[in-house]
Order: sequence, then C-alpha cells, then structure tokens
Amino acid sequence: MRWSQSLIPTQKQNPADAKIVSHQLLIRAGFVRQLTAGVFDFLPLGLRSLRKAEQIVREEMNAIGGAEVLLPALQPLSLWQQTGRDKSYGDNLFRMKDRHGATTVLVPTHEEVITELVCGTINSYKQLPLTLYQIQTKFRDEFRPRFGLLRVREFLMKDAYSFHATSESLDQTYNDMYAAYEKIFARCGLAVSAVEADSGPIGGSASHEFMATCEAGEDTLLISDKGNFAANVEKCEIGTRSSDLGGAPTGELTRVHTPNLPGIDEVAARLKIPARQMLKTLVYTVIGKQDDAERVESLASPKWLVAVVRGDHAVNEAKLKRAASEYFGVADVELIDNPTVRASWAIGFVGPDRAVNDPLSVVLIDLDAGNAADWCTGANEADHHVMHFNWLRDAGDKLADPKKVRVVDVRNAVAGDPSPKNDGGVLSERKGIELGHVFKLGTKYSVAMGANFKDDKQKEYPVIMGCYGIGVGRILIAAAESLSDEKGLSWPVAIAPYSVVVTPIKYDGEMKDAADSIYAKLNAIGIDTILDDRDQRPGAKFADADLIGFPVRVTVGDRGLKEGVIEVKARKAAEAEMVKLDDVIARVQELLKA
Amino acid sequence: MRWSQSLIPTQKQNPADAKIVSHQLLIRAGFVRQLTAGVFDFLPLGLRSLRKAEQIVREEMNAIGGAEVLLPALQPLSLWQQTGRDKSYGDNLFRMKDRHGATTVLVPTHEEVITELVCGTINSYKQLPLTLYQIQTKFRDEFRPRFGLLRVREFLMKDAYSFHATSESLDQTYNDMYAAYEKIFARCGLAVSAVEADSGPIGGSASHEFMATCEAGEDTLLISDKGNFAANVEKCEIGTRSSDLGGAPTGELTRVHTPNLPGIDEVAARLKIPARQMLKTLVYTVIGKQDDAERVESLASPKWLVAVVRGDHAVNEAKLKRAASEYFGVADVELIDNPTVRASWAIGFVGPDRAVNDPLSVVLIDLDAGNAADWCTGANEADHHVMHFNWLRDAGDKLADPKKVRVVDVRNAVAGDPSPKNDGGVLSERKGIELGHVFKLGTKYSVAMGANFKDDKQKEYPVIMGCYGIGVGRILIAAAESLSDEKGLSWPVAIAPYSVVVTPIKYDGEMKDAADSIYAKLNAIGIDTILDDRDQRPGAKFADADLIGFPVRVTVGDRGLKEGVIEVKARKAAEAEMVKLDDVIARVQELLKA
Repeated sequence: MRWSQSLIPTQKQNPADAKIVSHQLLIRAGFVRQLTAGVFDFLPLGLRSLRKAEQIVREEMNAIGGAEVLLPALQPLSLWQQTGRDKSYGDNLFRMKDRHGATTVLVPTHEEVITELVCGTINSYKQLPLTLYQIQTKFRDEFRPRFGLLRVREFLMKDAYSFHATSESLDQTYNDMYAAYEKIFARCGLAVSAVEADSGPIGGSASHEFMATCEAGEDTLLISDKGNFAANVEKCEIGTRSSDLGGAPTGELTRVHTPNLPGIDEVAARLKIPARQMLKTLVYTVIGKQDDAERVESLASPKWLVAVVRGDHAVNEAKLKRAASEYFGVADVELIDNPTVRASWAIGFVGPDRAVNDPLSVVLIDLDAGNAADWCTGANEADHHVMHFNWLRDAGDKLADPKKVRVVDVRNAVAGDPSPKNDGGVLSERKGIELGHVFKLGTKYSVAMGANFKDDKQKEYPVIMGCYGIGVGRILIAAAESLSDEKGLSWPVAIAPYSVVVTPIKYDGEMKDAADSIYAKLNAIGIDTILDDRDQRPGAKFADADLIGFPVRVTVGDRGLKEGVIEVKARKAAEAEMVKLDDVIARVQELLKA
Repeated sequence: MRWSQSLIPTQKQNPADAKIVSHQLLIRAGFVRQLTAGVFDFLPLGLRSLRKAEQIVREEMNAIGGAEVLLPALQPLSLWQQTGRDKSYGDNLFRMKDRHGATTVLVPTHEEVITELVCGTINSYKQLPLTLYQIQTKFRDEFRPRFGLLRVREFLMKDAYSFHATSESLDQTYNDMYAAYEKIFARCGLAVSAVEADSGPIGGSASHEFMATCEAGEDTLLISDKGNFAANVEKCEIGTRSSDLGGAPTGELTRVHTPNLPGIDEVAARLKIPARQMLKTLVYTVIGKQDDAERVESLASPKWLVAVVRGDHAVNEAKLKRAASEYFGVADVELIDNPTVRASWAIGFVGPDRAVNDPLSVVLIDLDAGNAADWCTGANEADHHVMHFNWLRDAGDKLADPKKVRVVDVRNAVAGDPSPKNDGGVLSERKGIELGHVFKLGTKYSVAMGANFKDDKQKEYPVIMGCYGIGVGRILIAAAESLSDEKGLSWPVAIAPYSVVVTPIKYDGEMKDAADSIYAKLNAIGIDTILDDRDQRPGAKFADADLIGFPVRVTVGDRGLKEGVIEVKARKAAEAEMVKLDDVIARVQELLKA
C-alpha cells in the first residue's frame, strides 16, 4: 500500500480524554478514531492489526478442530428469557422494539443462540464432541465506556462453544483450548498469564482468564512467588488462616464521636489507629429463596446478611455468597439501598454486636476480622464509633451459634497473603487486562433450553458444554500497553499493520526509483510493506514511522544511494545500520525473524 | 476438515416456508439456519462460501487502491439527523434507547459515519482522491423479511466510499469500481448485468446496479435486443413516442354502471374491451415546498398532482416526481390516503376531465395515455365509468395550458417498448437480484455535514463523493438460484465451501488409509478438501455431496482399490470417471481448472 492511498491521521497531541497509553497511542498513530462514547472507527492501520490478530486466532481454532460459524447479533428476547439471562445481564443488554413491536436484543455473547442451534441439529452421541467458534462483532451497553478500546459498546470477539457427551471429553477440549490460547498470545508477541477466575454471569464450574499484565489493567491478579498459582482477585482463595475470635479484652468499651469522616481511613486517622485495627461491617438484604429442604438446618428465614472484615480488607462478594448459601441457605444477597432501612441500621456505623444479636440477621466474619482482641467498630449510631471492642466480651452468646454466625474467608486476597497452595508461597498483586476467558459451563444452558443427545442405548442426556472467549481488539490494547516507548507504538511482526515502511527522503528521481524497487521486492516475497510516498519532511516521516511502530524502517536517501547503501532500522534498535543495496532484502528478512 | 468435526445438518425436505430455490437449498444443504424472521445462523459450509466471496471482493477493492476500514454499526441518531436520513429511512432504521436514554441507531449504510470521518481527517486536496471500504454487518428493520437470505434484517455488505476534489476524479474511480465489480462477479462464476438504476434514498446523480438475472429476482430489468442498453424498471427511460391527444371522437360519451369490480382488469372484462383502452388516473397530494423562484412559472400552489396512464401500464413514481418538479415546481408527492379526501375524489373512478378542470390540480398524462381517440375512464362517481371518452372533446380548454397539463413519459417501461437509444432496439423484461450498486453521490453528504477540503489556493470546497455497495450474502443466493439442479447446489470453485469431497465407501481399513492419503495430499497442495469420515451408507454420502454441490467428489471404494483406481466425478458431469491412483491429484486439479 502507498501511504497516500491510505488514511493515517497521525497527531502530535494526546487526546484530552485519553488516560491510558493504548488509548493515547492508538488514536495518535491513526489506528482508530472515536465516533461516540465507547464506539470507534477502525482506520486502515488499526484494522490491519486487528485482522492479523483475528487470523492467528482463527488458525489456532482450526488447528484444534474448531468449525467456524457466524451467528446473528440480533436475537429475540424470548431466547434470553429461557435462561434467565435477560435479567442477569440487566442493563448491559441492548434492547429495542422492532417496527412490529417485538423486543429484539443486540447481544454480547451467544450461549443461547448456539444452544438453540445444537437443539435443532444434534441428537446423537455420534455427533459429539463438536467445537464451533465465530469471530464476530458484539454489543454491550456499558454503563461508562472508558479507557479507549478497553471498555467499549461494540467490539470484535472470538467466541467458541464446545459440546460433549462426557465431562472427560469437555476436559480434553478445555485443555486443548487452554493450550491454543497460550499459542495465540505467544504468536501475537504478548506475555500472558492464565489465572483461575470466577465464572460470573456466564456460569459454570471452572474457568481461567488469560491476562496481559500491565499498569492499565482493570483486573487485579494475585500470583504466588512459588510460581505455581495465579488467580483473579474475584476468585483468589487464601492459604490457611487461623482465627480464635481474639483473646482477653485490652480496655474498656469506649464510645467516641466521629463526625464528618467519610470513610474508614479518615476515622482511623482521627483516632490515631491503623485501619487494620478497625472492623468494617456491611449489611446485605437477603433476596431470592432456596428450597426449604436446603434451609432446614439454618436460620428459618434470615432477612439480613451481615459481613464483617478488617478495615483494610474488602469483602469478596463471590465468597460471601457461596458462604451464605452453604451455611445459611441464602440464595442471593444485595447491599441494602432503601434509605429508611439504611438509616435504621445506621449504615456506616454498624457494630457487629448488633448484627450478632439481631434475630433476623446471620453474620459472616472474615478470619482476620475475628483474630484480635481489640477493635474499633461502629457504635450503631450515626457519627459514633466504639474503641476496644472485644468479640468474646461484647458480641453476646449468639456468637457461638453456628446457625447464626460463621468465621470464614469472605474477603479479597491481598499482597502478602499466603498462597492457597499452602506451600509457603506468598501472594503478590499485579494489574492485568483480560484477553481471554475459558469456562466449563456444564449443563446450565443445555438443561435450560432442552439441548439433549441420545447415547448408544437411546437414553437422553443434556449436552455438556464449554465456552471460550477472546477479545480480539484487546490483543491490540495489550501490545500497545506493554510494548510501546516514548516515541510511540512498537508492534510485534505478527500483528504489525505493516512489517516494513520504505521511506524515501524525497519521493523523486533516483530515490523514488530505488524506493519503488525495494517496496515492490519486499511485497513480492510476502513481506507486508507500506511506501511513504508523501511529500513531507524526512523528520516528520520518521516521527510518524516511530509513532506507528512498524517493526522495520528502510530509508532511501540520496547520499546513501551514491555510496550504494540504504539505511535499515529496526524499531526496537537504538541505531540504524547502513546496508549494501543488494543486501537490503535479506537484512530486512533477518530483522523480521529476530 | 473432517466432516465429523463440522456441523452440516442436511435435510431431505424443503422447509415449509421456503418459496425460492436458494432458500430451499441453502437450508437443506446445511449452509444456514433460520433463527427468527430475517435472521440467520451461518453454519460452517455457508460461512466458508461467504468468506471466499468476501475475500474476492477484498482483493479487487485492494487492487483499485481501496483502503479497508471497519466502521461501527452503533451510531448516534444525531448524525443521521444532520443529513435528514433519520426520516428518509423511516422505520427501516433500527432505533433504541441506551441505558442513559440516548437514542442510538443500528445502521444499514455508512455515508454519515464515513463523512464524519473525512470531516475530521481530510482537509487538503493533497489527501485526495481516497477510497475507503469495509466488509461489515448491516442491520435493517425490514417490514417483511422473506425469500430466505434475500430480504433479511442482518447481513454482510461491502460498502466503499470515494472522495474527490474534482468530478473527473470521481468519474475515474466510478469507472474503476465498475470494472472491479465486473471482475468480482466473474471470479465468483456469476453472469451479471450492469443496468442503469435510480439512486433512491442514497441520492446522487448517476448509478448502476449489478444484477444477477434469475426467476427469483425481486427487480425487473429491461434489456434492449441491440445489446447496448439495460436498466432497472425504476430507472428505465423509453424511446421516442409521439402523442396527439387522439383524433376525432368515435362515439357518444356513455355512462356505465360498474359495481363490485376490484380493478381495471375486471372492469375491462365486464365491458369487453382490452385494459389498454382504459385510462388509469391516480391522485397524489403535493407535499413539501420548493423555492418560490422555482415555482414562478408554474401553477401558484397546486394541491393535487394527477397522473394518467394507460390501463395496462404502471406509473413510475421517479419519473412522475421529476416531471412534477420540472413542469410544476412540485417538491414531492404521495398518494392520498385520507379517507374523506379519497371519497371526495371518488378514488378508483376518477375521470381525467375532472382533474384537468380542477383549479387546484396539475396533471401529467403519459404519452401512450394521450395517443388514442376512444377511452374508457372513471366517471367521477363510485361504481361508474364512461365509455368513448375523447381528450379533445371531453377534457376542456385547460388541456392546452402547459402550466396545468403536460403529456410526458411517467410510466414504467414494459417489454416491447422502444429502447431509449432510439436505434430500433426493442426492450424485453428479465427478473434480477441486485448484487451491487454504484452511485455518484456528488456533494449531498459533504455539504450536509461540512466535509470540505482546501485547494492549492487555500479555497474551501465540499468533497465530491461516490459510494459503492455489494451484498456479499447475495452472491451465494445468486449462485444457488442460477447454478443448482434437481440434485442440489453446484458451486463455482471460487466460492465452493470446499473444492473437493473425499468419500470413502466405508471409513475403515485400506479405504480409510487411501482416503486419508488423498485428503492430506489435496490439502497439502492448497486444494480445499473435506473428508466424509461419517459412518453412513454410501448412497446417503453421495446424496449429501450432490445436495451441497462440492465441485469434485473423489470416491474411494474397495473394489476400485483392488484394481488401483479411484472414482472421480465433477458435480457438473453426468458420469464419474475411474482414474489410476497415481493420477488422482492431477485429474482433480484439471477438473477444478475447467
């Protein structure tokens, strides 16, 4: 491609609203242009990188026996009602009325449609296993689109779905997919960690995320220094901790006035204690019901679930919900938001003593929050706290009732925690961008939608499923975040928009002829090359080439030509090298392989 | 690909609602599956053919210097309001409120977004000309999705847009694009006619449609037997016709009672005259206004436009609107639908005499409707007609007032009409499927959205634009409609899902080894091959292969193997041939080139 025939609107200034490197550079280098919040044009360079990443994904999906399909983005709402995901996706799901008044959704994921497809086409174990995938545009009504291409409303995804007669077969495909993902990201030149992950609204029994670690990441990962464990904070378990609900009291329970202090850190500062000496008490409304049979051993019908964690810790809602279900038969909870109820609880100043003694509450205390004798807690009245709270002295008899109170892990892991492998490993934190996610779905969707197969005895079973996503655009973000420098982007060859830019100092006379010739030769041997035929100062051309980050620049100047040499520079190299005219192509090939 | 790893749900019966061959066969052969009205899953075979067509389109766009982009489907309504197309697309445009209440549209075409892109990135004549294209999923809220993939709500299109400083430059790209379209359809193995077309809601000064002629086509084309003219009926001009408003009357004006006759044909039958002896009179409401300056020569402010055509002809609204604008300064018209007004006009029984004498009406009489002396027309009263109407005797003096009445071409061309080339050519009719459309847009969008460039004297002008679409899925429809036979589909090699199917009679023992070997060899030399490794009767495998329409089938049987021969059959050939094992690959290559 000639530069003059493409559209590469580079700019010198970062866009005002671009806070992360990938957003700044992909805009500045003319890869994308924002149309509206969370919606981008992919310009020629951006699309070329996107298509190269897409093709790598496709090849690796084909290599493990995946068959490519293309499923619609427009779907009837009724399909989503069959699995209840019309509710669980909530406002993230775009909905519209068509001209006849039917509600149509514009979707972010395809479990329902692929299960419907399997319902209509698969009926025998002989047709299993089967892996279908697509590379398709998804839509998601993000509450707050942000970080450039990271949180957008329209994006390209690869989503794959596998179908099995046995869980062993699912395990096999899950492992194949896991290995394919590692190959994909390695081919794209990215360092990626696979971490244990929570399944979230997709559901299922096991899942891993593939994370590119970089500062701009929205996710927090915890990684053991033993190198044998990594997980998303949402999913991360913590190694064994003990808890004795503290020892003997260290002082009188003392009420203190703490007005105009917006958070725990401010209260701790005022009281001159560390935040880790405070207890954070959150009150949730119990919603949904479980079967009575499951609830028989627990409090008959709790109305509130109270969580207590140390002041410097955060509640992990996935852990909280699992524990609430396991110990108290609670189906689901949500933070109370009714203002009257919040006032009656004195939210922000709740003391765990009240929760333990409230007949309609059940309480989950994190192990660390139960493991000291002297705490500062809310005083059950606005703008007041108490000092020297002691669980055994001040919480009352109900503390020992296992139908009422449990001391268990309900918080997010943090740096310094023991690894859940319990091998002496210590966790550290990283930020990461989620590039891919693999799930063992089990039969959640096949049962909801009646996707069954017959075994060799003609007996019917629900199909066992897995699903596997990659955000193709996020591969570009991760490369921009992790491989750029002060001059701009620096692409791995595999996903560079062009591998080589040929830059004549002036596109005229002998320089034009030499540039044309090198450009033609490189393209002829399959090296993807762009010719900078613009009438621009050399400095501007070089700055654009560095900003865009082509892996190799070949510069054709008149002085060099007189001496029979051409300047060749790898984007990553500090210096250019002068190469004899006849050796240019070979040298470029070497640099691209390096 | 192994058949067992793909999903190819062939079926023996036509789907109940499938009325056209392409719909029947693409479903039966497992290329697509309908999810809901006008929304389809592309299954593995369908997607492979689609991607091959897409790649041919991409290569030819690149060959004429197009740069590929990918623009969003989600767009703010405000963008469409800038060009007024939020109104002109009407209910065909999907609209929805996002979670913050903003109206977002899901679009069928990208003139607005590409013009916005050019506004933000192009400012100098040095950046022109430029051709951008994309291959992207479009959405259209069809009133009545039908004919399988032909009228759908979600579909893949290639849309290209070109930008120019001069109209000569637009002409050049328009011609390049026209030639590229001819190459694309030829490479896809389709016979396609380029016809003159009306620009419709896209707008612009010139356009051509690329039509695959086949019975299932929704469009009517007129083609001259001289081979030098073809046009869509919406656009088709007619060669010179004369009109003298008839000669002397042939009988007394006679009123007849014609109750319970729903249409012209029924009236003509009752009166025992041919429909061509009747006049059809349609009444339109004048809507919109033109500048007073344009209207100064015409009737001050007509309220109705009346069109008169021969009973066997149909009004061409594009011609009617152009004539109404040219002769009477009327901006736009629509058929009256107010019931009171319809009753007052006695719609269905309007006589042209009333229209000519109505002070608020202007009248356009088609040349053929003005070219005889004896007509049957409405009697201006429900359920009544008059016989022996004669223009000169019965229409009154106003007939001669050119500000009031014009006798011009306002009808659709029909078979038998003279070619507009006026070279003695006679038009015939064909049905066609529109595969592509090219438009000279001019400055409609750049003026509306302020997309200007500066010339070498820093003077600003609106960018001149062209736009060019191809319905990629329709290439598959056209192939299915025009190349299938009683056994099923029959693909051109270029867009076949696989070029070759290798079919072992039984996938076992020596047959398995030989089939595996041929399959591997064909794929290794780049021949796209599928291996039918299913445990099925040979007859079922052959029937599926014919239904799907792979260009070549290689059958591996045990008897042949003993004799060292393999059966090779081209889908289009009547008979299979026995080929020596060593010659199979070469023979397949020959057949694919044929």
